[in-house]
Amino acid sequence: SNEVKEYENYFGLTLLDRRSDKRTDSKWLSKKQSHPMTVYILFSNLSPLVTRNGGAESSQPEIKLCRLYHKDVEQCMNQSEEGTLIFLGVELQVHMNLLAAYNGRVVQEGEEDGLVAWFALSIDSVSAEKIKQKHKDCYFLDPPMPALLQLPEKEAGVVAQARSVLAWHIHYRFCPTCGSATKIEEGGYKKTCLKEDCPSLQGVHNTSYPRVDPVVIMQVIHPDGNHCLLGRQKRFPPGMFTCLAGFVEPGETIEDAVRREVEEEAGVKVGHVRYVSCQPWPMPSSLMIGCLAVAVSTEIKVDKNEIEDARWFTKEQVVESLIKGNKRVFFVPPRQAIAHQLIKHWIGMNANL
Amino acid sequence: SNEVKEYENYFGLTLLDRRSDKRTDSKWLSKKQSHPMTVYILFSNLSPLVTRNGGAESSQPEIKLCRLYHKDVEQCMNQSEEGTLIFLGVELQVHMNLLAAYNGRVVQEGEEDGLVAWFALSIDSVSAEKIKQKHKDCYFLDPPMPALLQLPEKEAGVVAQARSVLAWHIHYRFCPTCGSATKIEEGGYKKTCLKEDCPSLQGVHNTSYPRVDPVVIMQVIHPDGNHCLLGRQKRFPPGMFTCLAGFVEPGETIEDAVRREVEEEAGVKVGHVRYVSCQPWPMPSSLMIGCLAVAVSTEIKVDKNEIEDARWFTKEQVVESLIKGNKRVFFVPPRQAIAHQLIKHWIGMNANL
Ligand SMILES: Nc1ncnc2c1ncn2[C@@H]1O[C@H](COP(=O)(O)O)[C@@H](O)[C@H]1O
Ligand SMILES: Nc1ncnc2c1ncn2[C@@H]1O[C@H](COP(=O)(O)O)[C@@H](O)[C@H]1O
Repeated sequence: SNEVKEYENYFGLTLLDRRSDKRTDSKWLSKKQSHPMTVYILFSNLSPLVTRNGGAESSQPEIKLCRLYHKDVEQCMNQSEEGTLIFLGVELQVHMNLLAAYNGRVVQEGEEDGLVAWFALSIDSVSAEKIKQKHKDCYFLDPPMPALLQLPEKEAGVVAQARSVLAWHIHYRFCPTCGSATKIEEGGYKKTCLKEDCPSLQGVHNTSYPRVDPVVIMQVIHPDGNHCLLGRQKRFPPGMFTCLAGFVEPGETIEDAVRREVEEEAGVKVGHVRYVSCQPWPMPSSLMIGCLAVAVSTEIKVDKNEIEDARWFTKEQVVESLIKGNKRVFFVPPRQAIAHQLIKHWIGMNANL
Repeated sequence: SNEVKEYENYFGLTLLDRRSDKRTDSKWLSKKQSHPMTVYILFSNLSPLVTRNGGAESSQPEIKLCRLYHKDVEQCMNQSEEGTLIFLGVELQVHMNLLAAYNGRVVQEGEEDGLVAWFALSIDSVSAEKIKQKHKDCYFLDPPMPALLQLPEKEAGVVAQARSVLAWHIHYRFCPTCGSATKIEEGGYKKTCLKEDCPSLQGVHNTSYPRVDPVVIMQVIHPDGNHCLLGRQKRFPPGMFTCLAGFVEPGETIEDAVRREVEEEAGVKVGHVRYVSCQPWPMPSSLMIGCLAVAVSTEIKVDKNEIEDARWFTKEQVVESLIKGNKRVFFVPPRQAIAHQLIKHWIGMNANL
């Protein structure tokens, strides 16, 4: 039907159905862990195991995730700590076919449900060496950025999910409420304090759940509609400018965070703010919330503690660099970055918002 | 000028300028702490000290924050731990006037800058008793919800900020990376591990910064454009229905989180998603991201683990309850809640998105 088509168009962007309902089904999880169809993606030091993409066509992403199986990882699983295994979900395509096949019939206990599960496994450096020995064409992306941007879009989503949860386990090993050790539950998505009388065990607290840090990133438009404000940090490659960005603070709306950050970093006042789109950014677990922001003042006062430079660029300059590829004056991040999309979106718009 | 007018219209919604640049200026902070103009708002057990609003007009909010001064809190400050004092910002109005008065002149060291600072102070139950004795017309809002919704909008923003940061200090006393004690810095916005060789001290990590949990909350529209999907949890008062909601997971976009949550909780598939507005929700530190979501399937399958019920309501039923105040069939949360605004926004829209 049309409805399902439309749905698939949207869901076509994700590779996996997270199936959070299965996280508490430890029997199902452990059966899937040893199932020969189950896919494992590996991480060492928060870097995913990848391989070069066979297809030499320039339109193809340059790298892709290595998909390993239980037999490939069995050995390192016995060695690594329990907590480093994350249930990521089940393959969406197969899932939809199966739903059609079963057509409402309830899957019997013990029966194969046909779902292809994915897990992320974090391994130590010794196991990482062994894996690289066995799989000569594979390597761990290190440092992960900007290389992660070369992954196919769907795989980037899976890596964002896996890397964020794994980073949470590494940086949040102990109970922040009492300092005791914790245990990992629910397929890797929950952490519980092991001290019996810890206050964190009374009620539901965010200490038990992975962190997602909302960040605003904004294309700031000059009141004349024909310039945009881009900035750069010291650590950027020379010539690169991009949208301003900053963490949303407690008790703040997205729109207020945009206004505060632009004023703090560049001294420019912003009026109207409009949400455009967002992107998970697994460094380690940010959610980049992309906005258009209309400036109501024009004088720039750069806060050198935060950024190195900020300038108004004309639409013509942006078109020259982004569309025509003339990077003499400046260049922006690659197309996979939300900043690139925000800037491009602005060029495509009418000058007046 | 018009520019400044427009800016003030936007900034008119907030009471304080956070002045994050002052958080590292410990000399300025300590001077402001004892300044007679400085405003203190008090919390006990994460509940703010409030008083009934004098004005008997029904359009006025029923309660307001108690604004205390250094002389009122001096005693409890000496008794409470350092970490329970949060710098909230400076009053925006005075700030703008002053900027005009100083007209670009740099404020001399030691000179009064005229800024009215606000702090949040969390006190123990003994001090709380003393304060209540002294200020007979004041009381601590307990439980904070739904009473917090009765605060004036601007004060609600300040409480959201203060309560989120204070809750972070209570629930994140220890370093989650190594389990050691921490110290509080930067006016309450940073937490540093006291163990010298803790890995959290290498580089910048979110363990040092307050948590903000993004939550999606969505008005789901039936494919016919004339019904919306509302649900209820067991703990709600009888007859109350509201928008579905859920936490954004690591590696997920806002739009995907909306689709996942609606399918998980109600079994309904969603296609197009549009951001509408957001609201900080300090229970303890969520950012509610409000969206409109267009369903592409209609059959409801309630997940009883997550919600008690979900139903399609007609536009007429919603108008009857929300606008005409006939709450026989059902009612929605009060106007201060973002769910109320999302539902109202939908009624105001054309049937076709
Ligand atoms: N950051 C978080 N804080 C609290 N609960 C969370 C968080 N992330 C996921 N959850 C889950 O969401 C449930 C609470 O959702 P709610 O009923 O909407 O408050 C909890 O029982 C958890 O399973
Ligand atoms: N959740 C957070 N994680 C990391 N840095 C944060 C966070 N919240 C605020 N910050 C501040 O943001 C700065 C890093 O910002 P950026 O350069 O955009 O990565 C840090 O130096 C901190 O002062």
